[in-house]
Amino acid sequence: MRVTHLFTKTLKNAPADEVAKNAQLLIRAGFVYKEMAGVYAYLPLGKKVLENIIQIIREEMDAVGGNEISLTALQPSAVWEASGRWDDSVLDVWFKTKLANGSELGLAPTHEEPLTKLMKSYIHSYKDLPLYPYQFQIKFRNELRSKSGLMRGREFWMKDLYSFSRTQEEHDAFYEKISLAYDRVFERLGLGDSTFKTFASGGSFAKFSHEFQTISEVGEDIIYLHREKNIAINEEVYTDEVLAELGVSKDELEEVKAVEVGNIFTLGTRFSDPLDLKFTDENGESKPVIMGSYGIGPSRLMGLIAEHFADDKGLVWPENVAPYKAYLVSIGNVAEQANELYEKLQAAGVTVLFDDRDERPGAKFADAELIGLPYRVTISERLIGDGKLEFTPRNGGETELLTLDELLAKIA
Amino acid sequence: MRVTHLFTKTLKNAPADEVAKNAQLLIRAGFVYKEMAGVYAYLPLGKKVLENIIQIIREEMDAVGGNEISLTALQPSAVWEASGRWDDSVLDVWFKTKLANGSELGLAPTHEEPLTKLMKSYIHSYKDLPLYPYQFQIKFRNELRSKSGLMRGREFWMKDLYSFSRTQEEHDAFYEKISLAYDRVFERLGLGDSTFKTFASGGSFAKFSHEFQTISEVGEDIIYLHREKNIAINEEVYTDEVLAELGVSKDELEEVKAVEVGNIFTLGTRFSDPLDLKFTDENGESKPVIMGSYGIGPSRLMGLIAEHFADDKGLVWPENVAPYKAYLVSIGNVAEQANELYEKLQAAGVTVLFDDRDERPGAKFADAELIGLPYRVTISERLIGDGKLEFTPRNGGETELLTLDELLAKIA
Repeated sequence: MRVTHLFTKTLKNAPADEVAKNAQLLIRAGFVYKEMAGVYAYLPLGKKVLENIIQIIREEMDAVGGNEISLTALQPSAVWEASGRWDDSVLDVWFKTKLANGSELGLAPTHEEPLTKLMKSYIHSYKDLPLYPYQFQIKFRNELRSKSGLMRGREFWMKDLYSFSRTQEEHDAFYEKISLAYDRVFERLGLGDSTFKTFASGGSFAKFSHEFQTISEVGEDIIYLHREKNIAINEEVYTDEVLAELGVSKDELEEVKAVEVGNIFTLGTRFSDPLDLKFTDENGESKPVIMGSYGIGPSRLMGLIAEHFADDKGLVWPENVAPYKAYLVSIGNVAEQANELYEKLQAAGVTVLFDDRDERPGAKFADAELIGLPYRVTISERLIGDGKLEFTPRNGGETELLTLDELLAKIA
Repeated sequence: MRVTHLFTKTLKNAPADEVAKNAQLLIRAGFVYKEMAGVYAYLPLGKKVLENIIQIIREEMDAVGGNEISLTALQPSAVWEASGRWDDSVLDVWFKTKLANGSELGLAPTHEEPLTKLMKSYIHSYKDLPLYPYQFQIKFRNELRSKSGLMRGREFWMKDLYSFSRTQEEHDAFYEKISLAYDRVFERLGLGDSTFKTFASGGSFAKFSHEFQTISEVGEDIIYLHREKNIAINEEVYTDEVLAELGVSKDELEEVKAVEVGNIFTLGTRFSDPLDLKFTDENGESKPVIMGSYGIGPSRLMGLIAEHFADDKGLVWPENVAPYKAYLVSIGNVAEQANELYEKLQAAGVTVLFDDRDERPGAKFADAELIGLPYRVTISERLIGDGKLEFTPRNGGETELLTLDELLAKIA
């Protein structure tokens, strides 16, 4: 992509009402646009980051047997009344609206109810189970406050997978399997070292659920961490009883701020009972389906990654997430050679954002740093004379002068 | 994909309240699920069809210089009040909702206003233009009636591209260019022969806009067609004056039902004037940006394609749109050979839905016909004995007995 073709520009300032650092940076660098608090449009660079995050999650969900679907935002009330969650005092983040004929609809903040109902068309016998449908879908949540940029949205992207199992054992085995898939997701996103599977309260059907918490100064959550034993405990279950059960004591634990980047939850028959989702087992007996839900927020992750890796010059994208791998800067009268290099890098499989503007080098370098692609490659008359290119990793590495072959060996 | 891993099943009946043939077939074949009238969830097969349609449109939009973005459904009122379209009597398909603090929001039925406002951050000088941002986005329209299945949704997928140009000439040139891109889209979707660029009313800034209308018995529109001259005229501009201008007379024209599958529209300064989107030209003069909008509905297209090509046995997908290319049926005790064939076909680049169920052949053949993949490939003990496979095109072609090599030569 040529910068002259990209319609965004870097901006000096984010909107005055934007207080979250992730959104400030993402707006200034041209990744997102703030429509209102908690509601962001994705511009070309941001759309690519979001798609990269989604694709990593998709691959890991497919690897554990997921089936991708896409449910709807508009929701009639009946199925939510059956589960007891239509009432705004029970689920307090509803956006409600009305059909032209006056019937009330809701914008789904989550999808347990409609999916449980949908599955009644497809689950009858034990032979139909287990099943693992999932989706990437825009969720709507009427948050009272939304001041954390992309990390707490009113309209945001969610990956939600739901498991439908025959027995508690089958459920438990999948719960462990997807927990490992989550580890791989955060590892691939560059957050592996700072993300901990955290004990949280489990609801009616399990002692614990688990959150995946990334340690970050901007986190809204507090967790208690034993790094050596790799044990993390959410505030809500930080009790003497739980500590004893996990074999740790308060004075061994570190209190840290963290961001919840995923959660896995045993639903049991919380939804299959009221919505009457049953199957016939091997002995002809009718039984409720055992369910679980498993969420990851791709847009929250985008905000967190932006904020987590940023330095005082701008964004610093991990390679798997970056919209392009290299930022190509041409200096001076080298259009032909720069174009040729742009083609060669792409032919070698390196995605490139090519700053082909008629701009002074300082402005190009500043934009390269704000936008935060992993590698800056500079070409100039002087460098061409020496048969070299300048190579600068965004992530604090040393600048090197390399031949094209040396460069390709490093990044292709 | 193995049928035993696909969670959907074919259904005997669509819901009793579903009157549209496209939705009846798509529900029965397991492509979509009806949440409510005009609101459909996409199941694994349907999600793939939708993605195939989207990808074809994306490639053609990128080819004319499009930049993909993603705007938001939630909309504060201010920008729509500025354009005069917030009022329900002006734009009569709004879903409105409220923030927790009581402010009214709308769910965007289209995106001229928010995008025009967004562009004020990026368009200043003639050097910033022209620009062609586009998105695939879920639109919400509070239709009074929604009885056409996927062809008239209350929540549906839309591709909307908007052009921002310096001059009328620059606008006109792009308008012609994207018109040709639309031709390529419909050609690739298998609708080229039955889709006509149709004169429609142009609004304040052009004599005509253009719709792309696909002739179909289920169309809600009437168009007047001169096949030889390749001229089509929408009812609303079917006047003596227009006919004279186009050089055709009423008795030469055929009246046909059609479905609007796309439209291209000159907006002029309809939005840039009230929202004050200006640029400074080469002479330092401030001028309003000239805009255009260009829509295609991927979910409507999915419904239309389903209905347009269907026969009395079920769906008949064009190859570019089909969720998989081949439906592999194994008969009898040939699991090992069928698995091997499944792997070989996929290794040769043929996407396959493998009916590995323990089901009688008649049920498998009926499902193959209802689901409508382009090619059915059958393997059985008898066929293996003869060194052959049975090959049946869904689109009315003859069944043939082929060796694996012959089969691959045909479909790989």
